[in-house]
Amino acid sequence: MSQQIPELLEGERIDLLGRRGLQIIQNPKKFKFTIDAFLLTGFIKPKPQHRIMDLGAGSGVLSLLIAGQRGIEHIYGLEIQPELVSMAKRSVTLNQLDHKITILEGDLRSLPVSLKPNSFDHVISNPPFFPADQGIVSGNEALAKAKFEISCTLEDVIRASARLVKANGSVALIYPTGRLTVLIQTLAKFHLNPVRLRFVYARPAENSNLLLIEAKSDSKCAPVVLPPLFIYDNNDHYTDEINRFFKGEL
Amino acid sequence: MSQQIPELLEGERIDLLGRRGLQIIQNPKKFKFTIDAFLLTGFIKPKPQHRIMDLGAGSGVLSLLIAGQRGIEHIYGLEIQPELVSMAKRSVTLNQLDHKITILEGDLRSLPVSLKPNSFDHVISNPPFFPADQGIVSGNEALAKAKFEISCTLEDVIRASARLVKANGSVALIYPTGRLTVLIQTLAKFHLNPVRLRFVYARPAENSNLLLIEAKSDSKCAPVVLPPLFIYDNNDHYTDEINRFFKGEL
Repeated sequence: MSQQIPELLEGERIDLLGRRGLQIIQNPKKFKFTIDAFLLTGFIKPKPQHRIMDLGAGSGVLSLLIAGQRGIEHIYGLEIQPELVSMAKRSVTLNQLDHKITILEGDLRSLPVSLKPNSFDHVISNPPFFPADQGIVSGNEALAKAKFEISCTLEDVIRASARLVKANGSVALIYPTGRLTVLIQTLAKFHLNPVRLRFVYARPAENSNLLLIEAKSDSKCAPVVLPPLFIYDNNDHYTDEINRFFKGEL
Repeated sequence: MSQQIPELLEGERIDLLGRRGLQIIQNPKKFKFTIDAFLLTGFIKPKPQHRIMDLGAGSGVLSLLIAGQRGIEHIYGLEIQPELVSMAKRSVTLNQLDHKITILEGDLRSLPVSLKPNSFDHVISNPPFFPADQGIVSGNEALAKAKFEISCTLEDVIRASARLVKANGSVALIYPTGRLTVLIQTLAKFHLNPVRLRFVYARPAENSNLLLIEAKSDSKCAPVVLPPLFIYDNNDHYTDEINRFFKGEL
């Protein structure tokens, strides 16, 4: 497989994305993918023919991980920051995945008309975790917008998700455990009910820092809480499950 | 320590309650304590001088476990079924804990006037888990009322809890994980916010079946999700933590 060498802008480099032959263009001074992307893609269960939307796609890491792995029909990534859109598009080409991934520049608070309501089987997002007024917002604009509710709030993400997801589709998010209550209440505001949750723990004896949640429109299903997901074992090594996520063995 | 031998009614017997020298009167054909009582008493963190209310006290198991162990000022148990009230009172006497436990016969939907609003540091409950119209309600009335929402609903329990708990006190419940969403929403209806949760798993690789939750009035705290609580290990033996709960080593 011949690989097209992408143009790299100043500060950018090509990094390996997991252990599955994927590569990603990143600017380590601005924005790098985190393990969260592996956790969320390990959590969702898309089927062949499913259409997926990644809201707030950043450098395209979620789209790349999903497209590189499964028989998914098509993945769309919506991102507001032109710099990240450019990086994501070039990463898609670098991995020869243009036929499966479309990166769109746009604002999820005012969805592009090309995105039809109720047209996606899965809407996924790694939304900004923290209110803009909480903690120190990085002077690094790209990172700040990814981590803090500057370009959009949790409610904006969930409103857009509820609009885009099919009636029988699902919305999946990764979010800080400390915001569990507001998350469930905001989902309920848009008639999305949790059907599957998984709590993530850095280590077995620690409190959970992140949660994975899947919600469906007005589902009457009781939510299922899956077994805990530990990142490191008691010897500070990645657990077998996390290693499988890196390798794409989901 | 000389022990007063209690009167036993037909079908009743005296069972050991954990491995901490406590005994409990039960009628195995009608109502027996479950491991849930050890899970909930292992979860709460009362301090000396704290006043505790157990709503829906059943045979008094929660009150006995707490009073037998810690420097608690006083525990009140409210129970609607006269038969269980009688058993609980005799168990209290059997364990020589009359100075620490008061069992009251009454309906939590219409609280006895002797129970002042906002007067308890902790309100705890192991409420009926299932709606009355869900599943097969046992022909055994005592068990049916304990497990199904016949004498009271979750909302009744939470309303009474919100009324009885002090402004800075806490409400702690054990409840099926599948009702997580309705639980959080019902707590919110009475201005109780989750501050601490722990998910219980029968075995490490299974989905959670129960959850422990502590909520406080209008707390602005982010909820903490504690490490998972496993009942059995992979060899089907009780985990070390559960054995500590049985022994009262909390």
